[in-house]
Amino acid sequence: QELNPASPAFKYIAMSNTNAVQEFNDVFPVLAEELLTHLKSLNIPQNAIEWFDRSMRHNVLGGKMNRGLTVAETLRILKRGEALSQDEIFKANLLGWCIEWLQAFFLVSDDIMDDSKTRRGQPCWYRVEGVGNVAINDAFILESAIYFFLKKHFKKDAYYVELLELFHETTYQTELGQLLDLITAPEDNVDLNKFSIEKHAFIVKYKTAYYSFYLPVALAMHMAGVKDEAAFKQAEEILLPLGEYFQVQDDYLDCYGLPEVIGKIGTDIEDNKCSWLINQALAKASPEQRQVLDANYGRRNQANVVAVKEVFKQLDVEGMFKAYEEESFVRLTALISKLDHPLLSQDVFTSFMKRIYKRTK
Amino acid sequence: QELNPASPAFKYIAMSNTNAVQEFNDVFPVLAEELLTHLKSLNIPQNAIEWFDRSMRHNVLGGKMNRGLTVAETLRILKRGEALSQDEIFKANLLGWCIEWLQAFFLVSDDIMDDSKTRRGQPCWYRVEGVGNVAINDAFILESAIYFFLKKHFKKDAYYVELLELFHETTYQTELGQLLDLITAPEDNVDLNKFSIEKHAFIVKYKTAYYSFYLPVALAMHMAGVKDEAAFKQAEEILLPLGEYFQVQDDYLDCYGLPEVIGKIGTDIEDNKCSWLINQALAKASPEQRQVLDANYGRRNQANVVAVKEVFKQLDVEGMFKAYEEESFVRLTALISKLDHPLLSQDVFTSFMKRIYKRTK
Ligand SMILES: [Mg+2]
Ligand SMILES: [Mg+2]
Ligand SMILES: [Mg+2]
Ligand SMILES: [Mg+2]
Ligand SMILES: [Mg+2]
Ligand SMILES: [Mg+2]
Repeated sequence: QELNPASPAFKYIAMSNTNAVQEFNDVFPVLAEELLTHLKSLNIPQNAIEWFDRSMRHNVLGGKMNRGLTVAETLRILKRGEALSQDEIFKANLLGWCIEWLQAFFLVSDDIMDDSKTRRGQPCWYRVEGVGNVAINDAFILESAIYFFLKKHFKKDAYYVELLELFHETTYQTELGQLLDLITAPEDNVDLNKFSIEKHAFIVKYKTAYYSFYLPVALAMHMAGVKDEAAFKQAEEILLPLGEYFQVQDDYLDCYGLPEVIGKIGTDIEDNKCSWLINQALAKASPEQRQVLDANYGRRNQANVVAVKEVFKQLDVEGMFKAYEEESFVRLTALISKLDHPLLSQDVFTSFMKRIYKRTK
Repeated sequence: QELNPASPAFKYIAMSNTNAVQEFNDVFPVLAEELLTHLKSLNIPQNAIEWFDRSMRHNVLGGKMNRGLTVAETLRILKRGEALSQDEIFKANLLGWCIEWLQAFFLVSDDIMDDSKTRRGQPCWYRVEGVGNVAINDAFILESAIYFFLKKHFKKDAYYVELLELFHETTYQTELGQLLDLITAPEDNVDLNKFSIEKHAFIVKYKTAYYSFYLPVALAMHMAGVKDEAAFKQAEEILLPLGEYFQVQDDYLDCYGLPEVIGKIGTDIEDNKCSWLINQALAKASPEQRQVLDANYGRRNQANVVAVKEVFKQLDVEGMFKAYEEESFVRLTALISKLDHPLLSQDVFTSFMKRIYKRTK
């Protein structure tokens, strides 16, 4: 089944670029104000309010907001053209912002753990003058905001507990993915024996796919009144592989993408990342090539990076990715076409597929 | 009203020392096994399971467990002598362990932010060989375990949502207290102008009193079937001042306690802590004494510490504490004696008072 530009999925993507983005962005100031008003009611000193506000704006804003936008977009598809009320639009976007707050919690701490320097074209929060390790507690506060919003806006809804549990579980899954990532690929102790295609798959699924792909759709399903566990299961069975495909692309683009297009210079090789590329290379490398990888992966010099990329070239890792990309498209499209739950729509998933297939950034 | 050794409160304290402690400790292995069994079901690689297990044991165990023990103890008092079922004992202790997990989450990260070296007689987790900043993610995982346990054991209970919200709110309160503490008393930028008695009171209430005093009692109240908001309000109105008194004692003992009794050598003066003592001294210091404090507080040399302690002596800060301790006893005892909610028992609070009044460690 080819993606069809006349399909509903396209309409919703187009919407994201205009009205839906505006509606989404309009919700942030409301949420920021709710948090600040609450803080003022506690009589917390002004310097703490200012710090909180600065942390929130620095860390929640400035991303691509794809995950956040997906909640309302998915809800529109699930409602099959029925117009959303103002209240539904607000609440769907609020849930979208909760994902952005969750991501901010992850990114602030990930940057500390990875010793990163910049994020979204700015210094990482912990690198901002005067912040340092206070950023750890700021990350916690970003997470807490989620439950503040959910209680304030969803307490009376039948699916309130489901939202709480979904955020808890997704958070835990992401943390487990981070754990395996951190201990598999520590920057200060390169050991390619720790890598494997299975570990890569676990890391990607837990660290990225659950919160980036499953979470926004599952939130929209709750809002649409879906209760049947089987529907959530079907969605998960497509979204997790989609998320894995997305992350493999990310690994590919880090090495082979155009810096002027992806907006950064990839450093996965220098950073000893357990990426898809190195795992494919390890699986195929001759003893001599393995020695070159062992001696050069996860090291800072340009000569080391060149040596690793030369082995990638000998093994045609780029060709392996192209084959994986084609295979993924066929496999995922088939998965989507088999989806038959009456409360779901294939368009939810083709919409994702359309956005990410053969992406260059 | 003097504390009477024949009162029920004493009986429950005595129990804590034998059977109740055993019952509490018996629950930990059950919970640890539940987490590990779940991890295995996810097919997470073995090295991650071992890391998780090591982090959990290092960080959750080894404390005094006062907060954890208080849940079952309070439930016993609230049930007024009615025997608890095995299931109630297990669940109350499970909630007690959730507080210990929550505290582990706070302490692991607090030690990183405070650049501490040891905790409970061991190296801080982030200082353990090979751990480092991975400890940040380990702290997150400790927090996530709480919601794993609550879902597993309380999902069917009428007060499940109340438990979730109570943990969310207490976590947020503690983080807000940490925030103010961190920006008021940064170790690398001593400025006593940032301190004030009001800030000290906010920090203590938010950083310590909610999770250490209110949380265990409120959890027991939910288990006892208390629904009336007014009962929670009355409990809070006693427990937060009790917690403040407890923390002021902690600040006092850091400076004037016997190291062989309190089990550590206090370093609040060196660490630029916004403690009760320095705030009292600042409020009374002459311009000359203020200069000595400005020049010596928050510095590492023994001579600096001696100079600060000399000003404390001139101002009789120790005497101010003794007066505060007496005043607190009278004030808190009066507060307790006015407590009249039918679902509460004064014994819950006299039990706390008895344990902490004039404590030396
Ligand atoms: Mg990173
Ligand atoms: Mg990372
Ligand atoms: Mg990447
Ligand atoms: Mg500390
Ligand atoms: Mg601290
Ligand atoms: Mg202390």
